[in-house]
Amino acid sequence: MSKKIKVIVWNEGRHEKTSKEVQKAYPNGIHGAIAEALGKQPDFEARTATLDEPEHGLTEAALKDCDVLTWWGHMAHDAVADEIVDRVQERVQRGMGLIVLHSGHVSKIFRRMMGTSGSLKWREIGEKERIWNIEPGHPITEGIGEYFELPHVEMYGERFDIPTPDKVVFISWYAGGEVFRSGCTWERGLGRIFYFSPGHETFPIYYDANIQKVITNAVRWAAPRRWRESLDCPMVEPLEPIA
Amino acid sequence: MSKKIKVIVWNEGRHEKTSKEVQKAYPNGIHGAIAEALGKQPDFEARTATLDEPEHGLTEAALKDCDVLTWWGHMAHDAVADEIVDRVQERVQRGMGLIVLHSGHVSKIFRRMMGTSGSLKWREIGEKERIWNIEPGHPITEGIGEYFELPHVEMYGERFDIPTPDKVVFISWYAGGEVFRSGCTWERGLGRIFYFSPGHETFPIYYDANIQKVITNAVRWAAPRRWRESLDCPMVEPLEPIA
Amino acid sequence: MSKKIKVIVWNEGRHEKTSKEVQKAYPNGIHGAIAEALGKQPDFEARTATLDEPEHGLTEAALKDCDVLTWWGHMAHDAVADEIVDRVQERVQRGMGLIVLHSGHVSKIFRRMMGTSGSLKWREIGEKERIWNIEPGHPITEGIGEYFELPHVEMYGERFDIPTPDKVVFISWYAGGEVFRSGCTWERGLGRIFYFSPGHETFPIYYDANIQKVITNAVRWAAPRRWRESLDCPMVEPLEPIA
Amino acid sequence: MSKKIKVIVWNEGRHEKTSKEVQKAYPNGIHGAIAEALGKQPDFEARTATLDEPEHGLTEAALKDCDVLTWWGHMAHDAVADEIVDRVQERVQRGMGLIVLHSGHVSKIFRRMMGTSGSLKWREIGEKERIWNIEPGHPITEGIGEYFELPHVEMYGERFDIPTPDKVVFISWYAGGEVFRSGCTWERGLGRIFYFSPGHETFPIYYDANIQKVITNAVRWAAPRRWRESLDCPMVEPLEPIA
Repeated sequence: MSKKIKVIVWNEGRHEKTSKEVQKAYPNGIHGAIAEALGKQPDFEARTATLDEPEHGLTEAALKDCDVLTWWGHMAHDAVADEIVDRVQERVQRGMGLIVLHSGHVSKIFRRMMGTSGSLKWREIGEKERIWNIEPGHPITEGIGEYFELPHVEMYGERFDIPTPDKVVFISWYAGGEVFRSGCTWERGLGRIFYFSPGHETFPIYYDANIQKVITNAVRWAAPRRWRESLDCPMVEPLEPIA
Repeated sequence: MSKKIKVIVWNEGRHEKTSKEVQKAYPNGIHGAIAEALGKQPDFEARTATLDEPEHGLTEAALKDCDVLTWWGHMAHDAVADEIVDRVQERVQRGMGLIVLHSGHVSKIFRRMMGTSGSLKWREIGEKERIWNIEPGHPITEGIGEYFELPHVEMYGERFDIPTPDKVVFISWYAGGEVFRSGCTWERGLGRIFYFSPGHETFPIYYDANIQKVITNAVRWAAPRRWRESLDCPMVEPLEPIA
Repeated sequence: MSKKIKVIVWNEGRHEKTSKEVQKAYPNGIHGAIAEALGKQPDFEARTATLDEPEHGLTEAALKDCDVLTWWGHMAHDAVADEIVDRVQERVQRGMGLIVLHSGHVSKIFRRMMGTSGSLKWREIGEKERIWNIEPGHPITEGIGEYFELPHVEMYGERFDIPTPDKVVFISWYAGGEVFRSGCTWERGLGRIFYFSPGHETFPIYYDANIQKVITNAVRWAAPRRWRESLDCPMVEPLEPIA
Repeated sequence: MSKKIKVIVWNEGRHEKTSKEVQKAYPNGIHGAIAEALGKQPDFEARTATLDEPEHGLTEAALKDCDVLTWWGHMAHDAVADEIVDRVQERVQRGMGLIVLHSGHVSKIFRRMMGTSGSLKWREIGEKERIWNIEPGHPITEGIGEYFELPHVEMYGERFDIPTPDKVVFISWYAGGEVFRSGCTWERGLGRIFYFSPGHETFPIYYDANIQKVITNAVRWAAPRRWRESLDCPMVEPLEPIA
């Protein structure tokens, strides 16, 4: 199994162009920070792609060479072209893993895969979040203890409008009084999907060791085991004689 | 609870315009046959809508007055306007029930709610189908025995590309050797969804007493208990003092 | 549908015999308080049963006449006879609803239905709990807002050792920093099961209007739609000719 | 990851003592046949245990050294001591994988983990079974095509009294007209459970290449990722200051 897991770390990348604060927090962009963390894994091959590249950096060729796609968008969800969303969706249905981060809860691709609005409550005062590990035996929680904390976060609160997850892996506690299903898994076609809510454009969350560990685990968990060639509906002959 | 359940029975209705065979099987259209069956329930108020009406008969006003929508389409899925699909989807997320029949497995609205391709195997030789009741305590199987049979059907076979259902209510056996998860439930937002595979444009399946019973049960099960007003993401104040 | 839902409110009832504090909080016992609340519903017929009655008040005749059983036990789980647990379990498999309250998470009957240990973290300092409504369209949350609060509770914290619930209906936030899946549903055979964590032997939780509303809703949700006569494995003849 | 997966192949082993037919079909016992197949995997270390050994071959020491237990029983389910069932159950809750085969659907350990009766329909006329692969991306179906066939089997038919599985991996079609959820997964505590229905004491099913492949895949899937040390309920201090 010497084949590496090929990851594309996608970022909208608009904040990075317009905000000094974001540039200071993430000098190489949020995508740069995540790709750097993932790139340290000997079994991963991580690259980045952003909204303002041709075809958002998600050409047919790029996706064909991708095992797991991580997604970060915030202010420009609508700028993602529908045909690229179609392309990503089909690739997930065929087997590609998809990891949706933080504000991606209302991205086109997440809502496309879920069928729900992705709506939630939010607040941006930098309060404390404690992320509880609800599935201590799940591949995504390997190396994560009973809980971990982030000192300053944007709050995401229930009710989170998502389909019942296959597994709720993390539930978050917030100082301000809310809770959130902060790590959830689903499958669509042959593809595995993980939504992970912690993250922000200026809080240094993607440098946190636990956050990097969870995303790393999620990439391994979501890496395709098999690919489906066709999504067509074939007409088939009977397998038994019909009287 | 004297309020009636308002049902719109939607049909593409194109076969009915072009095929003598379909006209013979369903003189009032497939929608007419289903609406007539549902209309016999004293607690239902059933009407029809079809593709070639303005806005496909699914105006804002029509949907606001609808508790459960049943969907039959086959040859003209692409002719359904995206804005109407958006409208139906949002209405389901707010609470409306959705019952997708037979070839609706690749309709825009079903794929939109599921996130998957809806692909399956098929064969149209009029073989026997035996529909097994896997959830004998479920509201949708009330009055249905351990199984029932349809003498001549179009076969729909696995693998059916759907998200893991909340409940698999029926599994079908086919004379030709396939199986199929023929009745499945999901929830999206406040809306309940039921997919039920039996059906055809010329086989007289929608006149079958068991089929009518299942669809009737499904309408009652999918009728909204509550409606959600907004799908927005509100900013909220903390409920606890933040140090 | 004039038939009433018959409820047995079961209580271990030992605290009530030994503790002045419990007697003061629940002069008619915890069972008395819950049965009184349920008895106000015109469609319910509620009675009580306790550990120290013959057969724990759960004779064959009593269970045959019971639609939904609510369960509260704490210090004497082991005093419940295995044959009575067998009897209750079989009755649930045949269709009876079961609502397990608070410290019932390690009762014999709950662990029997779940297959897991039911273990959790706990703390008894009377902190605040905020119970978030995660499923705003579920029958069990009818009349419950986005959340409700209890000022002084025993904390129950994750990881709660339960099988993945069909639906997580409530998630609790605690002042001390934990979270908990405080309302969960499952099905076993034809029976519906609801676990609801709030409760205590001296905090006056079962007098709280929201708590009473949830238990009332849960009784209606868990009331059997059908009963299964036999749990045997019948030998059957083929339905198709075998070559 | 050079550590091997330690498997105990458990068999009731009574048929083997009493029936010439069984001895002829399985000269080394059913356990011998399965252990031999698993033992060919370089990453497995397989041994056997049977009912009539002391403590049924499942001593504390044996289970502590076991990653995955496979279970075959048929005529002597009641002869399995409750304390051994307790021991196996606790070991699964701590992380051990459990694979239950064929007539194990009414074994004490399976019913203990499920909470249901495990009842089903059956027929023993040696008809054809076609096992459909419903989850083509699941680890358990690696190397298995769209379906495979067994020419002569005992039929197991729905309704199978089990809790809603996490995943239904296989659905079987029978010549006599039934269907069955023949491969299902659940989790209990940290342990993964797979039920796989094909099997028989005289039909040579455990020599079939596809059957051996599925059991091999299931062992790898069920191998523990982590172990839980304690199933106790700890009292914990608050993580936040309480006003």
